[in-house]
Amino acid sequence: MDKNGKISSAVIRRLPKYYRYLGELKKMGINKTSSKDLSQLTGFSASQIRQDLNNFGGFGQQGFGYDVDNLHLEISKILGLDKKYKLVIIGAGNIGQAIANYTGFYEADYEVVSLFDKNPKLVGLSIRNAIIRDIDDMEIYLNEEKIDIAVICTPQSVCQQIADRVVASGIKAIWNFAPKDLKMPEDVYVENVHLNESLFSLTYYYNHFNNEK
Amino acid sequence: MDKNGKISSAVIRRLPKYYRYLGELKKMGINKTSSKDLSQLTGFSASQIRQDLNNFGGFGQQGFGYDVDNLHLEISKILGLDKKYKLVIIGAGNIGQAIANYTGFYEADYEVVSLFDKNPKLVGLSIRNAIIRDIDDMEIYLNEEKIDIAVICTPQSVCQQIADRVVASGIKAIWNFAPKDLKMPEDVYVENVHLNESLFSLTYYYNHFNNEK
Repeated sequence: MDKNGKISSAVIRRLPKYYRYLGELKKMGINKTSSKDLSQLTGFSASQIRQDLNNFGGFGQQGFGYDVDNLHLEISKILGLDKKYKLVIIGAGNIGQAIANYTGFYEADYEVVSLFDKNPKLVGLSIRNAIIRDIDDMEIYLNEEKIDIAVICTPQSVCQQIADRVVASGIKAIWNFAPKDLKMPEDVYVENVHLNESLFSLTYYYNHFNNEK
Repeated sequence: MDKNGKISSAVIRRLPKYYRYLGELKKMGINKTSSKDLSQLTGFSASQIRQDLNNFGGFGQQGFGYDVDNLHLEISKILGLDKKYKLVIIGAGNIGQAIANYTGFYEADYEVVSLFDKNPKLVGLSIRNAIIRDIDDMEIYLNEEKIDIAVICTPQSVCQQIADRVVASGIKAIWNFAPKDLKMPEDVYVENVHLNESLFSLTYYYNHFNNEK
């Protein structure tokens, strides 16, 4: 925790991993765990894990470890996974459609309620009960519905302009798949999934690990 | 650079971003840039950028800045984007199909040459010239073709087993979209795109930024 009482982003990035491993332990019927067990599962050190959890009150008892169900539940509450979220996807191309079809957000309650696109061949179609609407109708829709998160899957050339429009309609959280860093007001949080950058880093390591090729 | 002469992963993660911004400058017809300009574009400090590039020899002249074309080319060579790569995708569901259809790996020369799935309804179909083959034929295919990168888009329950099979066939680079941390030999590099963890972090910040809701 920094001097403003803000939890560092590195801690926040580790929480979903703890949540996932605790979910796996739960499924296996394991009730108790320790920072040492979690260390072996996650690859983070036991002291790192204790320190991370201490930011939120600890949840464990010395010499006793953690109750798996309870810790899983507490982390889900910290992340906010105990609530429901409505998502819209802007750009109903390959990535947008894949996210709309994705069922991997297990346990957590995310609902894609609509997609938007400018392609008339896509407008009117549905993906899992979510209609693809005309991008020109986006503002009216966003003003009428209470949407939590906008997922941007447009081409790079229009993503900033789309993000500006989304934010002007009151959206505060953006999940951005377009390969660009969005310039946004300070009260808007952007989480990027930059597939190119991920693949390019992998390519560097592939070449580095395999110098003989 | 650490004491073994290894470039830190934080530097490697920033290179694709430099590459992208330099590509944008190039498109705009801009020939010269400086660490100060790049700092404004990328959000990293000018000294950070100079330090990062110094790991590879610098490329700039004091008081003169960087030649955009040259720096773009040099970074592409460092990442290995001047070579061709053959990819296979394992799991031809939503995410696998989206990656196969994705055209966003602009400039770089990646080719998805085949997909694999166990679903008989998918086997035999093609996505952009890449045939979806039966997962049971994967080893024969991987032994015959020289594949650089395996993209794992299977369900979580089978991803470790699939990764083990892929590695047993000689693959050294894995781009993993399954929500699990793969346990792999040391000479295999795994790059994870964990969509759940990304969305869960976003959710934390959404709740944190919007305490009043």
